[in-house]
Amino acid sequence: MSRTWNFAAGPAAMPEEVLLQAQTELLEWRDARASVMEISHRGKAFMALTAEIEADLRALAAIPAHYKVLFLQGGATLQFALLAMNLAAPGQRADYVLSGHWSEKAAREAAPYVEVQMAADARASNYTALPPRADWQLDAQSAYVHYTPNETIHGLEFPDIPEVGSVPLVADFSSSILSAPLDVARYGMIYAGAQKNIGPSGLTLLIVREDLLARATRPMASIFRYAEHAVHESMLNTPNTFGWYLAGLTFKWIARHGGLAAMAARNRRKADTLYAAIDGSGGFYRNPVEPRARSRMNVPFFLHDAALDARFLAGAEQAGLLALKGHRALGGMRASLYNAMPQQGVDALVAFMSEFQRGHG
Amino acid sequence: MSRTWNFAAGPAAMPEEVLLQAQTELLEWRDARASVMEISHRGKAFMALTAEIEADLRALAAIPAHYKVLFLQGGATLQFALLAMNLAAPGQRADYVLSGHWSEKAAREAAPYVEVQMAADARASNYTALPPRADWQLDAQSAYVHYTPNETIHGLEFPDIPEVGSVPLVADFSSSILSAPLDVARYGMIYAGAQKNIGPSGLTLLIVREDLLARATRPMASIFRYAEHAVHESMLNTPNTFGWYLAGLTFKWIARHGGLAAMAARNRRKADTLYAAIDGSGGFYRNPVEPRARSRMNVPFFLHDAALDARFLAGAEQAGLLALKGHRALGGMRASLYNAMPQQGVDALVAFMSEFQRGHG
Repeated sequence: MSRTWNFAAGPAAMPEEVLLQAQTELLEWRDARASVMEISHRGKAFMALTAEIEADLRALAAIPAHYKVLFLQGGATLQFALLAMNLAAPGQRADYVLSGHWSEKAAREAAPYVEVQMAADARASNYTALPPRADWQLDAQSAYVHYTPNETIHGLEFPDIPEVGSVPLVADFSSSILSAPLDVARYGMIYAGAQKNIGPSGLTLLIVREDLLARATRPMASIFRYAEHAVHESMLNTPNTFGWYLAGLTFKWIARHGGLAAMAARNRRKADTLYAAIDGSGGFYRNPVEPRARSRMNVPFFLHDAALDARFLAGAEQAGLLALKGHRALGGMRASLYNAMPQQGVDALVAFMSEFQRGHG
Repeated sequence: MSRTWNFAAGPAAMPEEVLLQAQTELLEWRDARASVMEISHRGKAFMALTAEIEADLRALAAIPAHYKVLFLQGGATLQFALLAMNLAAPGQRADYVLSGHWSEKAAREAAPYVEVQMAADARASNYTALPPRADWQLDAQSAYVHYTPNETIHGLEFPDIPEVGSVPLVADFSSSILSAPLDVARYGMIYAGAQKNIGPSGLTLLIVREDLLARATRPMASIFRYAEHAVHESMLNTPNTFGWYLAGLTFKWIARHGGLAAMAARNRRKADTLYAAIDGSGGFYRNPVEPRARSRMNVPFFLHDAALDARFLAGAEQAGLLALKGHRALGGMRASLYNAMPQQGVDALVAFMSEFQRGHG
């Protein structure tokens, strides 16, 4: 076994216990006499599994009964368009809060379907700070307010849920879902690609307040309509059954390891360890994000001399520290510290960083 | 090991060799030191894999260079809408050939985006016959002609590719792709959900003639636009990486076992075996489809007395013959005989049918 520490931003490291269980039962799942991949999504066994998975997630995240839980395909990017088509009428306005690459993209993809208003915009900071809540220009007539609680590329995270009054708050939680307790009732809709904290890529989680399902009035194919997916319990068409199953294993893994409060404590400690190493390096390493906006999940950092980047990455790989190369938009490094990354992985990274600095200081 | 014969319509049986390889390397893929599920889709290793997969598929199906190959999410149902949005301008007409449940659904989902014309319609036969080509009302101004080469529920299959002149022919090949040689150049676009002959659910294959990518002129989100997916090599957003990988293993399995010509011969023999047993049962079993329209992939059949259905299904399960229950729209039985079903599975089914008839004749 030569598995090592994998800091990939997504698809990302999954809990080894989850992978081991999936491996054990890959050819024969429960008493199906077949792989879980090979059975009908509408059969009793799989339907019982999805009910179990939903119940596990509802317990884990304390999801109120008046929220629907959907497991769809297409990633968060498909939702950028679909949420506008479903939550707004043509010509209606929606408020977008720009805090990094992903919130920008969410606004751009929604633009053909809703009048996008920039309610707040942190571009002037090069996305090193969050737009202060006091400066947001919210429109009480907006269909919804959209924001991105954690920006995977720029490494910003909202420390609190913004208060937006009675307009439904819609959040792309792709890179921080289930990393801490979630106050679902504060949101109109939460959505997340699975490939960071939930499971493999190819699955998207939606948690949507039931009354919002009635909003979609424009003509559209049923496959675009949240209400249709809800009526069909996410089986309007054949779902990604293996991804759904792996999400279920991951929810059980989270519960076994203490639930969301325990995840939050572990994630806090991991992030504190890494930021302390960066800040304590005397400028050898640098994270440009203002401290209270720093992401616990994605930590971009830069060496004082970019000419050392290639050597850093090669040394890290040799030390078993994988996928630390930063996003091409920013360069430098990025360490993603999702639930599946244990403290030992971060300790190993910090030890390597310190050793590298001694060798190149 | 108690894996048995799985006749599920989709998600369906996968080749055991494919599952065994996936199991072996589930935690460590090649030299990634991680699962193939845990690595970046944009990293060198995965990009090399997808290039290899596309090359394998192009060789297998002799795909001409002026066709793009895309691996997307959302199933064929999402394509029902997207193909209309991409291949037709608003207000343009398209011809649809109705041969069963799925072609009806394709037409219904396209209707918000194109003026759907029923070019041919086999409803009067209760979908036991194909609409004769001579009766088709084709419109030379149509954006495309859509048909469904194999109807999974009604068990009809077109024995030949219909000649439609210069209007692009668009085909939902979900349930018969790669079951026989494919004359790609006869089509404008071929699409297929993966969960029958390609791999697990959650992945959709598109093979589209390059010049058609320029047709999409209506305003829409980039995630809906085939041309965007083509430019980004199916990585406009995070793809279903594990499904893609499994598709690749399946393509190699098909090649190892003789390619599409060998699949065609095996599939012909399996279907002939089962239809002969049905037709030779003296009316105990019955398939209502006219012989030249019978599907090689999906064989619906009915017992002469529906009161025996439950006993038949229970006996079949005990004999290790799984998932034979017919679609709820038709009742009765259905045996799906995709590539991964070996002749021995069909022989076992036919032996059981004969034994059951002796016990209940």
